[in-house]
Amino acid sequence: MQLRKRRERDRTQTFLIEGHQEIKQAISAHFPLQALFFSSHSIEDPDLIDIIEKASYCGAHLVEVTPLLFTKLSYLNHPCGLLAVGEQRHLSLKDAEKEFCPSPFILVVESIEKPGNLGAILRSADAAGIDALFLCDRCTDLYNPNVVRASMGALFSVPTIELSTDEAISWLNRKGVKIAATSPQATIQYTEADFQPATAIVMGAEHFGLSTSWMGSAHLCLRIPMHGIVDSLNVSAATVLLLYEVVRQRQTRS
Amino acid sequence: MQLRKRRERDRTQTFLIEGHQEIKQAISAHFPLQALFFSSHSIEDPDLIDIIEKASYCGAHLVEVTPLLFTKLSYLNHPCGLLAVGEQRHLSLKDAEKEFCPSPFILVVESIEKPGNLGAILRSADAAGIDALFLCDRCTDLYNPNVVRASMGALFSVPTIELSTDEAISWLNRKGVKIAATSPQATIQYTEADFQPATAIVMGAEHFGLSTSWMGSAHLCLRIPMHGIVDSLNVSAATVLLLYEVVRQRQTRS
Repeated sequence: MQLRKRRERDRTQTFLIEGHQEIKQAISAHFPLQALFFSSHSIEDPDLIDIIEKASYCGAHLVEVTPLLFTKLSYLNHPCGLLAVGEQRHLSLKDAEKEFCPSPFILVVESIEKPGNLGAILRSADAAGIDALFLCDRCTDLYNPNVVRASMGALFSVPTIELSTDEAISWLNRKGVKIAATSPQATIQYTEADFQPATAIVMGAEHFGLSTSWMGSAHLCLRIPMHGIVDSLNVSAATVLLLYEVVRQRQTRS
Repeated sequence: MQLRKRRERDRTQTFLIEGHQEIKQAISAHFPLQALFFSSHSIEDPDLIDIIEKASYCGAHLVEVTPLLFTKLSYLNHPCGLLAVGEQRHLSLKDAEKEFCPSPFILVVESIEKPGNLGAILRSADAAGIDALFLCDRCTDLYNPNVVRASMGALFSVPTIELSTDEAISWLNRKGVKIAATSPQATIQYTEADFQPATAIVMGAEHFGLSTSWMGSAHLCLRIPMHGIVDSLNVSAATVLLLYEVVRQRQTRS
């Protein structure tokens, strides 16, 4: 499958979706599907037939293949029998902001490298109910099959906007959204900040952390207490902690 | 390198450690090193020379290899020039419990499948300062190179005990340690539980969650609020949330 390569995804503006859950969620979120490949074994399972019918109704071209060929198409160790080709969607900030709540809850990630981390971050972001994910100076392709997979379909539910660091900072400042960064040098713990007002949690790349542009623009610089020998958490672990601190504060004080 | 295979690690009771940080931490934690392979380029870097000298002082057999051969030995995309062979350590509960604090803070993980998840869990466990990690009915080998790598060396600092689910439950009950499990069906949120007393946070496998033995033994069944379309967090994300809720409560109320 050529679509495993980023260049091909960029050129065709399409991507691969594998897994029942993921394909169902893509359909629910009205992501246009160009095609759905299914193994001839799949039509023995009523759940899969339901997904195939829905995909067809939404305009996907259906392609039945032998189980052997399906195994070759699949990028999973345990193929589930369905593989879709979806069309990429590029949301503009102007469109997305119409849906934001009055005190928006934004997550910004800068130059994340590993697809597994970006996928796990999307999954946590969906669970925490953020208004939008800003993907700044992207490094990993949002439509990499491993991002789709690790997100468990959250890629389809989290409004994600790709933009430059400068554009993001300028928009957040214009809208009065507090920018909260984390740093091992910070003195205030992340549980001591006030996340009731409009907030953007900002997370940097795995090895290099946040760029100086973001560190210089942060209104809050927060510390995650570290009681062992490692000096930082994995980026997706740090992200879920910060996101759920916002959730905790907003539900207990509201 | 035969030690990339679990069978060979089990047979020889050794494992691979790659990365400056990781090797330094193994030395600090007094993990015996049998050998240290280093690229002839490494001896141009004072930091690496320091590690080589310390390893030699601790009894490691030093083996200098050409940069080309080192690249073949390494399991990283960007080899750092040092690769150690360490001896596995198997801690008994009897020995470990002597070091526990009066209200022990234990993490139990059951049958984790992905090395990356187990490594990230170790990293979070180190950061949260737990007393011990109980590895029940292990599925992924603790000494898998990807666990070592993803743990960022926390494998060497977190007292980890491998035991069966039955042994673990029986010990926790005997010591009066509260067992806290998470479940989407629970009604109490994880932030509402009282984590001051001795607590064991229990986490299940990626796909199947906790076994009925653990669910049936849990004193607390807790829910992580989910505000999106996915029905659960990644296991390492859920783990770090629970661990840091214990940290938050213990530092604010103590």
